[in-house]
Amino acid sequence: MATGTLAGLFSTSLLLGLLVCQVSRCQRFTVPLRQPADCGAQQFFDISSFTCVKCGPNQTRSTFGTSCICQTGFRVLSSNGPAITCQQCPVHKPGVTTDGYGCIRCPGGLSDVGTCLCPAGSILVERDLSGNLLEEGRCEACNEGEAAFSTPDLTGSRCTRCEESFINTSSSCICSHANVLVGGLCFPPNNLPTSVTSNVNFDQLALLVQSAWFSRNLHSSALSCLIFSNLTACQALGNMCVMSMHTQVTANDACGLYNTIFRATAALGSTQGISYWRSNLPWLYYGDQPGLASRTLRTEALPVGFSFKGPNKNTDISFIAAVYNAKGDFLQWESVGKGNLQLCPDTAIRLNAAYRFGTAYKQSCTLSLSKIVTDFPEPLFYDIFMDVSQSRSGSSGDRILLSVPVKNLNLKFNGQLVNQESNLNNWYLTRRVFVVDALTGRESTLSAMPKVIRVATNIKISFQLVPNTLKGEVYPPLISISYSDILVSDMKTQTVPVLFSVEYEMDQSEAQVKTDIALGVLGGVSVLYALLKTASWKRRIASPLIDLTTVVKFLLFYAGDLANVFFVVTVGTGLYWLIFYKAQQFVSVLLPLPNQEEKFITYVACAFALKAVQLLHKLVSQLSVDIFFIDWERPRGKVMKTVDGAGETKNIPSPVSIWRTYFVANEWNEIQTIRKINPTFQVVAVLFFLEVVGFSNLALRDPSSALHRDTEAYKSPWSLILRYGVATAMWLVIGLFQMLFFTVFYERFVEDKIRQFVDLCSISNISVLLLSHRCFGYYIHGRSVHGHADTNMEEMNANLKREAENLCGQRGLLPNTDTQTFQIAITNKLRQQYDRILEPLTRRNGPSRLIDASASPFEQNTKAYHTMNKFLSSIIDHAYHEMDYIVKDKLVFERLVGMEFMEAIEKSIFYNDESHSFSDVLYYGNEATLLIFDMLFFCIVDLGSQNFVLAAVLTYLQQQVFCLIRNVIGRRNLAAKTLVDKRFLI
Amino acid sequence: MATGTLAGLFSTSLLLGLLVCQVSRCQRFTVPLRQPADCGAQQFFDISSFTCVKCGPNQTRSTFGTSCICQTGFRVLSSNGPAITCQQCPVHKPGVTTDGYGCIRCPGGLSDVGTCLCPAGSILVERDLSGNLLEEGRCEACNEGEAAFSTPDLTGSRCTRCEESFINTSSSCICSHANVLVGGLCFPPNNLPTSVTSNVNFDQLALLVQSAWFSRNLHSSALSCLIFSNLTACQALGNMCVMSMHTQVTANDACGLYNTIFRATAALGSTQGISYWRSNLPWLYYGDQPGLASRTLRTEALPVGFSFKGPNKNTDISFIAAVYNAKGDFLQWESVGKGNLQLCPDTAIRLNAAYRFGTAYKQSCTLSLSKIVTDFPEPLFYDIFMDVSQSRSGSSGDRILLSVPVKNLNLKFNGQLVNQESNLNNWYLTRRVFVVDALTGRESTLSAMPKVIRVATNIKISFQLVPNTLKGEVYPPLISISYSDILVSDMKTQTVPVLFSVEYEMDQSEAQVKTDIALGVLGGVSVLYALLKTASWKRRIASPLIDLTTVVKFLLFYAGDLANVFFVVTVGTGLYWLIFYKAQQFVSVLLPLPNQEEKFITYVACAFALKAVQLLHKLVSQLSVDIFFIDWERPRGKVMKTVDGAGETKNIPSPVSIWRTYFVANEWNEIQTIRKINPTFQVVAVLFFLEVVGFSNLALRDPSSALHRDTEAYKSPWSLILRYGVATAMWLVIGLFQMLFFTVFYERFVEDKIRQFVDLCSISNISVLLLSHRCFGYYIHGRSVHGHADTNMEEMNANLKREAENLCGQRGLLPNTDTQTFQIAITNKLRQQYDRILEPLTRRNGPSRLIDASASPFEQNTKAYHTMNKFLSSIIDHAYHEMDYIVKDKLVFERLVGMEFMEAIEKSIFYNDESHSFSDVLYYGNEATLLIFDMLFFCIVDLGSQNFVLAAVLTYLQQQVFCLIRNVIGRRNLAAKTLVDKRFLI
Repeated sequence: MATGTLAGLFSTSLLLGLLVCQVSRCQRFTVPLRQPADCGAQQFFDISSFTCVKCGPNQTRSTFGTSCICQTGFRVLSSNGPAITCQQCPVHKPGVTTDGYGCIRCPGGLSDVGTCLCPAGSILVERDLSGNLLEEGRCEACNEGEAAFSTPDLTGSRCTRCEESFINTSSSCICSHANVLVGGLCFPPNNLPTSVTSNVNFDQLALLVQSAWFSRNLHSSALSCLIFSNLTACQALGNMCVMSMHTQVTANDACGLYNTIFRATAALGSTQGISYWRSNLPWLYYGDQPGLASRTLRTEALPVGFSFKGPNKNTDISFIAAVYNAKGDFLQWESVGKGNLQLCPDTAIRLNAAYRFGTAYKQSCTLSLSKIVTDFPEPLFYDIFMDVSQSRSGSSGDRILLSVPVKNLNLKFNGQLVNQESNLNNWYLTRRVFVVDALTGRESTLSAMPKVIRVATNIKISFQLVPNTLKGEVYPPLISISYSDILVSDMKTQTVPVLFSVEYEMDQSEAQVKTDIALGVLGGVSVLYALLKTASWKRRIASPLIDLTTVVKFLLFYAGDLANVFFVVTVGTGLYWLIFYKAQQFVSVLLPLPNQEEKFITYVACAFALKAVQLLHKLVSQLSVDIFFIDWERPRGKVMKTVDGAGETKNIPSPVSIWRTYFVANEWNEIQTIRKINPTFQVVAVLFFLEVVGFSNLALRDPSSALHRDTEAYKSPWSLILRYGVATAMWLVIGLFQMLFFTVFYERFVEDKIRQFVDLCSISNISVLLLSHRCFGYYIHGRSVHGHADTNMEEMNANLKREAENLCGQRGLLPNTDTQTFQIAITNKLRQQYDRILEPLTRRNGPSRLIDASASPFEQNTKAYHTMNKFLSSIIDHAYHEMDYIVKDKLVFERLVGMEFMEAIEKSIFYNDESHSFSDVLYYGNEATLLIFDMLFFCIVDLGSQNFVLAAVLTYLQQQVFCLIRNVIGRRNLAAKTLVDKRFLI
Repeated sequence: MATGTLAGLFSTSLLLGLLVCQVSRCQRFTVPLRQPADCGAQQFFDISSFTCVKCGPNQTRSTFGTSCICQTGFRVLSSNGPAITCQQCPVHKPGVTTDGYGCIRCPGGLSDVGTCLCPAGSILVERDLSGNLLEEGRCEACNEGEAAFSTPDLTGSRCTRCEESFINTSSSCICSHANVLVGGLCFPPNNLPTSVTSNVNFDQLALLVQSAWFSRNLHSSALSCLIFSNLTACQALGNMCVMSMHTQVTANDACGLYNTIFRATAALGSTQGISYWRSNLPWLYYGDQPGLASRTLRTEALPVGFSFKGPNKNTDISFIAAVYNAKGDFLQWESVGKGNLQLCPDTAIRLNAAYRFGTAYKQSCTLSLSKIVTDFPEPLFYDIFMDVSQSRSGSSGDRILLSVPVKNLNLKFNGQLVNQESNLNNWYLTRRVFVVDALTGRESTLSAMPKVIRVATNIKISFQLVPNTLKGEVYPPLISISYSDILVSDMKTQTVPVLFSVEYEMDQSEAQVKTDIALGVLGGVSVLYALLKTASWKRRIASPLIDLTTVVKFLLFYAGDLANVFFVVTVGTGLYWLIFYKAQQFVSVLLPLPNQEEKFITYVACAFALKAVQLLHKLVSQLSVDIFFIDWERPRGKVMKTVDGAGETKNIPSPVSIWRTYFVANEWNEIQTIRKINPTFQVVAVLFFLEVVGFSNLALRDPSSALHRDTEAYKSPWSLILRYGVATAMWLVIGLFQMLFFTVFYERFVEDKIRQFVDLCSISNISVLLLSHRCFGYYIHGRSVHGHADTNMEEMNANLKREAENLCGQRGLLPNTDTQTFQIAITNKLRQQYDRILEPLTRRNGPSRLIDASASPFEQNTKAYHTMNKFLSSIIDHAYHEMDYIVKDKLVFERLVGMEFMEAIEKSIFYNDESHSFSDVLYYGNEATLLIFDMLFFCIVDLGSQNFVLAAVLTYLQQQVFCLIRNVIGRRNLAAKTLVDKRFLI
């Protein structure tokens, strides 16, 4: 036998011929794959060598295929391990005994497997009481009458007591015609429908399935439940109603029968004080009065309060479920959380994160149908409760369970999917859920593959906070469950997406109202402020008319102010949620849900769009500013110059070097985009704190305020509001820190570009006149206290030294003052004169026919420059009485409002301005606008992409692009207005 | 009954007193938690209402507690659902029948549960054949002799055929003394030890456990296997050997018995052509010859080749296992991958990622012991094979399986843990593994909780590539498995960390050798190059001595060159792995394992450290450069000046304005840290491509080269080499792109700061003399072609215009040339003169006693400035014959080597230098060094933290810090050397 096996084996190996062994001692450790089913009918599968081995004579393989059995009509002569010997039974004893080892004469015929057959109600006797084999089998009829109450057992070899229902109903083991014989049980006549429907309707597929389970069990369960008060049968009936989605279509379907029995057993009363929970029956419905759902869900809070922090920290949600199998057996109390409702596989830590209060939880995956069917051969039913005991440590008797209502989205009430409506009062709350039902869909037999599988593809547990609670009180949770019907076509490739989520919500309408009020009030203020700005602007351009430009200007100012309003409101909201949600001890607020965040995002978008308008407006204003450098230097000597070849020398004034002007213009060009903070550092630092230090973790929808999260731990979804809150908080804190650093330390001890520029003006004997509006601007007084600056190193050093030693006068415009910088409001007349001087230059850009062809642009330039220089220095020197000016301080209120109360009609007015407010025409003076714009840009990108790195990269690029534009166009404007050649602005 | 239940219920509710209902219609849906075990002995648990309900009289709860049963001595009178009625049996019929419904007289005594007792070997007869209850039970002895071979069945109510081994051994149902009765079986006398040890040694705990499973099954399995050739018993014996870690301590433990039987059945021969696989027995060992492991693992490659891409893409690894239960039943062929070896729960997609060739896989988690015990009540045994069929589509008969050897790290051979040694030849390879064994550790009974649990806490599958394969050939895989013995103390809180990993390795020695060769060769070259640089440096400082400074200088140069060598080698290695691993079609290389990467990281660290030394060296050199601005301007007129109050005017030359020098110095100061690329943009762009575009995903240890990965998909661990490769590739590509952009587009069409500076020199009539070494430096010729530049705007514009129209001479130093920039090698004499002029200034920094107290520093400054200006302009004008110079072109070879062949002894030499090489003393001319330093800094931070964001942030900060230092100290040096006041360098 063994030799034969080996021989067969070797031949197989050779036949395969795939693997040839080259080295003499080498062994190939390969084996051909053989399945038990691959072996022939006369072979068995050798579990030791994984080969098919031939059975002995007269033998055939067993069902599983791992051993041999005798053919029909043969008995086992001897068995020794896998090897048995079979012998044909003699003709006079053709039957094989049930144990297969003997031959026997049969009283009747032979069965398919060669054993003797007896008529129904009889048993086959092969051995006597002492175990001796009889020569001939006997068929004995069981005594079905009183006292014996016996009937053949399942194997047909013994008479045993028959089913209790027969005895109860008919006092014998025979169910008479007056009674009802259903599902192997005998019932007395009763009020239940005589026929029940075992068709289950799979709505989503519009498919009626003749369910084997229902046809076998529905009627008998209902009858057992009603007549014998069989608790298990009642549960089984309830389960079938649950499998029918709690939906009653006719009176003789599962839920119809349940309801009939529910009404019929009214006398039993309710249990546990819950009116819809009938004794003996499972509790399936909360009731059918309208408004019951809202009363159940919104009337009373749970007795436990949740708290995120502190000594009373309580974030545990403990669900516990009574578990039944389909037959109605109570299996156990099981705590929910070890994946019983969560179909997606995951580690225990991540699965349990769903039951920490405040952690928005979302788990989704795609499961293969074959795995679902393997894991859930039969459905389990859960009656879910929440453990609301004050102390968890007590014995089970002290623990109070709150039943958790279920909203089955597939439930139909009077043909309507009432639970899919948004109106709480129409909901029809139920109890008892299952996760996978592969049982109902089996059509012919229970061992067949199911035709349809029902899976709970979307389970959502939602908590609602009690309004205005300060103790973390919540209403009872609600489990919303949505089932999908899946038609099984190809088990191996079909997949099912499933989703499990836990949501926490609170009534956001109050917060919404507050936001709206803030927006309304601040929006109103911003209108006033914009009006004021427009008025100020009108005064500064000295135009009394209200025209379209004025309206546009008003709208632009309004955009800026409104942007600030939106910004303040959104940052306030973001910080509010960040601080109040993450820092609260007892839960009093819960985050808005993603769909409640939409309005917020709209606000942020508005803030960004309006801020962009404001920024562009500011840029355009800055890029068209009028500027002139007034050179105070006068010629100091004469140049002996030979005139026109006549050999005659003539003294002409030595030229004043233009290089100081070049130097000042060059420096002015360089400080155009200097800012109060370092913008790139700002972006980098924000990114560092968000992504590396881990502040971004604060934006997770969970109660933890830890910056570092374990990689193994569950990561909740992002809250966009919190992301915005964290990002803006970072921007503001780092921005403020930078401001502080630069103003308090850097500009004082390292360098202050603005002050350097003012100093430079003074040293180089050059004043700067800036006109940001038609009749308003700034003046930097740079007249050298030494009279001359256009000199050699010796004198420059001497001058600097004298000034350092306080040996010369003060730099101010007025004698004995230090004030060098002024805001100026000039008269219309002065402005007209200014424009007149520049006219030849501006005309150049006008229509060509107006150009004075004779004069070269160079000459015009120089002429205009000299005229302007002379004109402006005369003005400053009070040379023209009709265009004189006065110097005064600005009122505090004028400063605050940003508007001059006195109009410059007779005389121009120079306001002392120690704070270098001329930087308003530079980036430097508009730090707030730029910072807020950068911040909003960053946040908008992040809200769109949820990627701080991308936001940082794009913000950096945006900064660079704006800087570049500002620099290039600013340089062009500077060259045009100051008549300094562009080549010196490097 | 129901009323009673309800009453009890209500009282319970009231007693709890916790919840008071306020609204009249309100209902509290709360329930106290009751477990079946909480109910008293006289109560049953009502599965419908979750309450404890009292049983009827004479009743007691059933075992599970959900129903009532009659007390001992009582029979069931009637049963109707949960309610039964019990009646005491009369005195003359004290016994209750087995079905519980009748009373009967007993032939003998009564059992504990009140039924009749019969002696051993007898059965209890209660009913006659027709099912009629007898008045008195009868005890019938079973006929144990020939023909009947009967013995009481398990219930003791029937005689059935006895166990086959009894009949085989003793031809009756009694095992005689000559035979061996073990485990319910009867064996003839045999050679096996008469007593076996059922103690299992848990080595890690040093604990001997008297295993219930072993004591029940070991001896009988061994005997059944040997004597009856029972296949299942053989498997069970093998399993026990596996549970003993394949370790034989004595001849009568599991493995000892296995080996005894193995030897005893030598006549049966081996199966499947594998010598250690005995027919009938499971295959447990590969054999015990030394060196067998290396022959098995390293001799022949698998017949399938793996390929990452293309039409023959083949990355599927298909493991298949024959699964047995502990009893030895063959269960099925199961494909490995659905979590059977992976204990950590995860989604199917991520679990299956372990079986994609080339994907380094690591899955670890911590499991609770209770979950392990629940999931694995009994161990499953896997014989693992790999499916190596050429085509997978064929039927199972065509599929070839390769047995996968197992290295059990806990195995002891002759008392040694041979498999923990690194020497392949000592390994003792085995077969068959289990994952969890909670069976062996059960001491008294099989239903007891285990005392010790054995878990496969570390399973590693490793593949080794065939050296020099081009077809993706690998050697057979090896499964290394390490078990942990866990002493059960508190099942609920104990946890077990488990790890499953798949590794792919190849022989890295060849790559290592190649790297070493490259390092050696390039290192040698770099010594030569450093020597050359030192020689050049010696010549440039005109010092012939070889002193300590020279050696230090050599080492500094060598550091720089060696840094480049390390950089080239590491980048080459990184790119090699990146390209060859990710882009290969047929697998020919596999990534180095993490521990093989250490050498690489050392190289990178060397490159970084050396590069830092080089950079600091360059910075120090740049910060101590000598510079002077030569002003060519001469006074143009006389100033009428009143002298000393005498009223007398005197003509003195009008001063030459210093402002041009200020302007030039200021510009020079500004271009100090200008670079050829934008370094911040570089960092930002690299970060963008790595993190946002997703290039970082290329650094995952898997064969995919996709940039975007599904969030659901498995993420392999990082390869540090690949991270380095990707990061440097990004840096180089973006750096090159920036270089290209700046040189080809930006500097040509937008602005070129260096050219602008040279132009400015020319326009401002100022030359720049730069001495980077003592006798070597650069000269920018800036003499204005117009003779004068210190003039007003009119003349400046006219000059510029003339030059634009080509109406004046060329700017070059030599007539009719354009070359303005030169490298200069000056004579020692010239340098001495230069130093002498500066002496009064440098002396100021010397010891105080040397200071000439009379002269103020200002005067000294000015004097030195004028002297130097005059001296240098005379030199350029060839005024001193003894310090003349010649202008010539540099040889190509001189340029390449970076060394001048001609020494400047008699005359100084000015080399034409169109390429603005004076930028070598600026950041601009050292772009390569700076870029590589930044890159290495970035990579070092990333290798340390594996965080590109952190690396980018720190690189940015580093750039800023170096820039700041360079600017501040450079400005100080500039002010000191050019005598320009620091206040003008803004």
